[in-house]
Amino acid sequence: MADWQEITGGVTAPKGYRAAGITAGLKPSGLPDLALIISDVEAIAAGVFTTSQVKAACVDYCRQRLQAKTSARAILCNAGQANAATGSQGVRDAQESAELLAKELNISPELILLASTGVIGQRIKMDALRSGIPKLVAELSETGSDAAAGAIITTDLVTKSIALETTLHDRPVRIGGIAKGSGMIHPNMATMLAFVTCDAAVSPHLWQQMLSRAADKSFNSITVDGDTSTNDSLIALANGQSRTPAITEMSAEAEKLEAMLTAVCQHLAKAIARDGEGATCLVEVQVTGTHDDLAARQIAKTIAGSSLVKSAIFGRDPNWGRIAAAAGRAGVPFEQENLQIKLGDFLLLKNGQPLQFDRAAASAYLKQAATDYPVVDVVATNNSNDLSGDRSNIKTQRLDNPVIIAVSVGNGHGTGKAWGCDLSYDYVKINAEYTT
Amino acid sequence: MADWQEITGGVTAPKGYRAAGITAGLKPSGLPDLALIISDVEAIAAGVFTTSQVKAACVDYCRQRLQAKTSARAILCNAGQANAATGSQGVRDAQESAELLAKELNISPELILLASTGVIGQRIKMDALRSGIPKLVAELSETGSDAAAGAIITTDLVTKSIALETTLHDRPVRIGGIAKGSGMIHPNMATMLAFVTCDAAVSPHLWQQMLSRAADKSFNSITVDGDTSTNDSLIALANGQSRTPAITEMSAEAEKLEAMLTAVCQHLAKAIARDGEGATCLVEVQVTGTHDDLAARQIAKTIAGSSLVKSAIFGRDPNWGRIAAAAGRAGVPFEQENLQIKLGDFLLLKNGQPLQFDRAAASAYLKQAATDYPVVDVVATNNSNDLSGDRSNIKTQRLDNPVIIAVSVGNGHGTGKAWGCDLSYDYVKINAEYTT
Repeated sequence: MADWQEITGGVTAPKGYRAAGITAGLKPSGLPDLALIISDVEAIAAGVFTTSQVKAACVDYCRQRLQAKTSARAILCNAGQANAATGSQGVRDAQESAELLAKELNISPELILLASTGVIGQRIKMDALRSGIPKLVAELSETGSDAAAGAIITTDLVTKSIALETTLHDRPVRIGGIAKGSGMIHPNMATMLAFVTCDAAVSPHLWQQMLSRAADKSFNSITVDGDTSTNDSLIALANGQSRTPAITEMSAEAEKLEAMLTAVCQHLAKAIARDGEGATCLVEVQVTGTHDDLAARQIAKTIAGSSLVKSAIFGRDPNWGRIAAAAGRAGVPFEQENLQIKLGDFLLLKNGQPLQFDRAAASAYLKQAATDYPVVDVVATNNSNDLSGDRSNIKTQRLDNPVIIAVSVGNGHGTGKAWGCDLSYDYVKINAEYTT
Repeated sequence: MADWQEITGGVTAPKGYRAAGITAGLKPSGLPDLALIISDVEAIAAGVFTTSQVKAACVDYCRQRLQAKTSARAILCNAGQANAATGSQGVRDAQESAELLAKELNISPELILLASTGVIGQRIKMDALRSGIPKLVAELSETGSDAAAGAIITTDLVTKSIALETTLHDRPVRIGGIAKGSGMIHPNMATMLAFVTCDAAVSPHLWQQMLSRAADKSFNSITVDGDTSTNDSLIALANGQSRTPAITEMSAEAEKLEAMLTAVCQHLAKAIARDGEGATCLVEVQVTGTHDDLAARQIAKTIAGSSLVKSAIFGRDPNWGRIAAAAGRAGVPFEQENLQIKLGDFLLLKNGQPLQFDRAAASAYLKQAATDYPVVDVVATNNSNDLSGDRSNIKTQRLDNPVIIAVSVGNGHGTGKAWGCDLSYDYVKINAEYTT
C-alpha cells in the first residue's frame, strides 16, 4: 500500500548529506557522545520542541534561530550533559558550541542548530567539545549516519534509524531519520531527539507545517512514562538536492512527501516506545468512532499511558476493564454503551458489556508479542554516573508484532493511534535503584 | 491552629447516625462486604462522583437521585462487584438494591444512596444481597462506624476513618468520615469511596458547594497511579441533629464548618494516598507563587503523579531534576529562572539553578519517611479472585511524616497541595503478577 520503499543509509540516504559520530569524552563511559549532520547546501529547516516550561539552552537557541532564519547547514548534538537548568552560562556554552563548529566548517554560526541530551543541571564539558569538534568534522562522510545515530543515544538499548524513498515527478526523493530516547533512565536523564533529512525542495512554511503534523501523528503519540523532557527536539532539513520541482503548497506530490515524512517519524517514534525503560513489548492502541482525529488520539494516548493497562500487559492479562476505565477518563465524551474493545483478534467488550472470550488464548497473544529482548542489569552497569547501559548483547528491535488494542467509541469518523510499552519491574528498578 | 479537635467514632460520631458492616457473601474471601450508614432523620445530601465516561450503575443512580432530591436517609455500599459495564441489568440491580433496603427500613427508596466497589463487569451477587440486608439493618448501631469502614474496603491495607468536633454558636458540631481506596490492585478493581456525616444544619445548595470545594482540595488532589475509577464516589450527609441554627449562606460559622469538612476530606484523602499500591511513604507536594490556586494545584498534582519522581523517592534519591521536569510540563506557564525546589529542609534549586546540598542527608530524609509498613504478598493472598489482601499484620498508618516537596515558581499568591506516594516494585508486582 505504501507509496515508498525502505532503503539503507539513515540520515545520509538523501542526497547531499554527510554525518559523523565520535567519542569526544563527554560521557564518563567513553562511548560515542558527539554527532554531526550536515547538508552540503543550505537546507530548509523546521523544528518541533519540548512544550515544557523548563527548557534546555539548546532548545531556546534553536527556537530563536528558526524564528530568525528558516534554513540551516548543520545539526550538532552532544550526549552526556543536557545543558538544562544551567542558567546564563548554559546559554553562553550553547552559543560557543555553534561558533566553534561554524569556524571549523567555515560557515556562519547562524546556519547551525544544536541539541543536547544527558544529565539536567550539568554544563556541557566544553574542553572535551573544543577538542572534539575538529575530529568530528574530519570524520564526516556520506555513510556516517550509523555513527551519528550511535553518538546521540544515552541509555537506549538500540540505535534508531530509518530511510525511505519515493518518486516525485519521476525522480527519486528520500527522507532519512535517526532518533534517541528510552525514557529517563538515569537520574536527571531525559530526552527524545530525532533528526530527519530530506532531499526534496519544499518551502519553509510548508515544511514546518508538514513536520508539525507528522510530529502529532508520531512522537506526540507515544508515551513511555508520561514525563516530558526539558530537551525534546525534532529537527528536519530539506535541501532540494533531489532536483525535483519546489513544493510550495499542498498538492498530490506534497501529500506523498508528507505521508513519507510521517512514516519516517512514526518508525522512529515506535522504535523509541519499544525501547522504553524495562519494556518487553510494543503496544499500539487504535481508536475509532470519535468526532475527530484529535479526540481519537487523546483516548489512544490515555490508554497507552495508563500504568494499570501497562502493568496488565506485562502480566499478560487480557484486562479489558482497565482499558475501558482508561478510555473513560480520557476527557472525550462518549456513550459507554457504544464502547467496543478488541485485543488482537479477541473481541472483549461490545456495546459496553463484556463478552465471553478464550482467556488463555488472549493471554498467549500477549505473551508472543514479548520477544526475548535483553534486560540490562542497570545496577551493574550504571556505576559512576555512566550514561550508557551495556549494549553488548542487543538484538535487533522487532517493531512488526505489537500488542494491538483496538477501541471503538461510536460512529464518528475520527481515528487515531498511539504507541507505548508495558510496565515491568525493570522500569522501577532502572528508575529507583540508581541512587546517588 | 485548627479550630477543632479530633474525636473517636467515625461516621457515627455526629449526632443522629448509625452504621453497620457485615459479611453478606459478596466477596469470595468471606471478609465483610456490605455496609450501611443511616441518619435517624432526613439529611441534606451532597455528592461528588467520577468524571469518567465509563460509570458504574450506582454512580448514575446517585447522580439522578441527587438531582431530583437533595436529601437522603441512608447510604448502602457493597464491596466485591463494581456493577460497572453491566448494562441495563446493572441498572435494575441498583434499583432493586435500593428497594430491598427501603422495604426493610420502611422508608421510600428515594431516600437511599448507593455505592459499589469491586470487579468491573461483574453484577452484584443479588442473592447474597437479598439475604444480607435484613441482617445488615439488624446490626445498625451508634458505634457501627468501624464495622462499616471495614466492609467497604477491598484490597486496602488499612481502614480509613476520622471524626472532628468544633462549636458553632456555642454548640458542638461534628463531622465524621470513612473511606476506601488504594489504587486498582486487582484486575478490573478500582474505586475511591468516601462517606461523610455531619450533624450541622446546612442548606442543600451550600452543602454541595462546600463539598465540591473540599473535594478539590482533598480527593481531587491525590494521585496513586493516575487512573480514575468508574465508581469513585464521595457522599456527604448533614442532618441538623446538632440543633445549631441552619447555615444557608457563607458566614464565619459556615467557613468554620467548611474548614472542618475540608480537614475531614484531606485526612481521608491522605490515608488513601499513603495506602497506595506498594507505597512505602506519603508524599506531600506544596506549590506556591502561581497566579491562582488552581494553577498551583495543577503543578502539585503533576509532580505527585510523575512516575519518575515517585521512583526516585522509592530509591531515596533527592532528584530535583525530575521534580523540575515535572513542574515544567504541568501546563502552567512560569519563568524557569524563578523555579525553587525544597525537599524537606534541603534547598535543592534556586533561581532555576542547582545548589550544593548534603546529598547523603537529603537521602536520609527520604529514608526516614518510609516507615516499616507491611508489604502484603499479593501472589499468595490473591488467589481465587479474593478481593482482600491479608491484613493480619497491619500497623497503624502514619500520616504525620510525609516526604515534603516544596516548589515555588514565582511571586504570585496562588498556593496548592497534592498528595501521593512512591512507586515501588510492589506496585508492578501487585498489578502484573495477578494474571487471570
